[in-house]
Amino acid sequence: MKLVIAIVQQDVLNQVREELIKNDISRITVSRCTGRGKATGEETIYRGQIVVPALIPKIRLEIACNDEFVDTCVQSIMSSARHGDGKVGDGKIFVVPLENVYQIRTGDSGTEAI
Amino acid sequence: MKLVIAIVQQDVLNQVREELIKNDISRITVSRCTGRGKATGEETIYRGQIVVPALIPKIRLEIACNDEFVDTCVQSIMSSARHGDGKVGDGKIFVVPLENVYQIRTGDSGTEAI
Amino acid sequence: MKLVIAIVQQDVLNQVREELIKNDISRITVSRCTGRGKATGEETIYRGQIVVPALIPKIRLEIACNDEFVDTCVQSIMSSARHGDGKVGDGKIFVVPLENVYQIRTGDSGTEAI
Repeated sequence: MKLVIAIVQQDVLNQVREELIKNDISRITVSRCTGRGKATGEETIYRGQIVVPALIPKIRLEIACNDEFVDTCVQSIMSSARHGDGKVGDGKIFVVPLENVYQIRTGDSGTEAI
Repeated sequence: MKLVIAIVQQDVLNQVREELIKNDISRITVSRCTGRGKATGEETIYRGQIVVPALIPKIRLEIACNDEFVDTCVQSIMSSARHGDGKVGDGKIFVVPLENVYQIRTGDSGTEAI
Repeated sequence: MKLVIAIVQQDVLNQVREELIKNDISRITVSRCTGRGKATGEETIYRGQIVVPALIPKIRLEIACNDEFVDTCVQSIMSSARHGDGKVGDGKIFVVPLENVYQIRTGDSGTEAI
């Protein structure tokens, strides 16, 4: 099992969720965050001072997947979160190992609980 | 060491924290999120259109545990976050491996720092 | 690759980001949370009742690092997030294994995508 964490632009949330649902992935946790990737050629020194670039509002998605769904999940987010042919700031997807999952309602654990 | 992440209903936050403290687990990170599990039989297609189900406000807990506390932590959340015999939306608990922890104040790391 | 998660005080956000940028780490995700460490000697029982300590506003940082940058990242946060010689509430740093990273814009994955 994996925990897929995606940081995406705010305007794509609905289309990412639609694409995930089409691929049978409907359980999701969403939160607001701000972030900063590395813009190429960005100046971070100005007159000898470090300039901390402004943080940009983003959406953070968290999705628990059984192993056989990870690729589908990643591809669904990738295709639906990209602007045009891909723009700076489109975001990142992180895949973290997930050792166990528990469903609070039933007490089930493991792949059944996802 | 493990990082225990729980998504629970908003109204159980205090009782979950009480139950954790009773079991000697007092360090916790709390944030707001919205989420959606898979409600059984839920219609996601309506007149040929995909309907993205509304996101529901939830609480996200993050707790770093030494291995011998993981079961206690999971059971404490499970028992205190459940509504009656268990209701749809009660939430999930995720267990992620944690390779290291550092306490910023002292510089300590590892199991001592938890 | 690792996912470095840090919980720090609100007032150090800019100096932590400056220190990270000085060390060539500019990609970061920031969110608001509340939290509670274990204050030594803190009373959690008052007249036989459990008292749930108030949650304090904090900042949560998430940084994906290639293995050779993890120590630099942790040390940068540690030195810039500490108040004086270290105060209760300065925060924690968690290091979680990261199996893969995808850049949404380019479709790149792995260490290149960080």
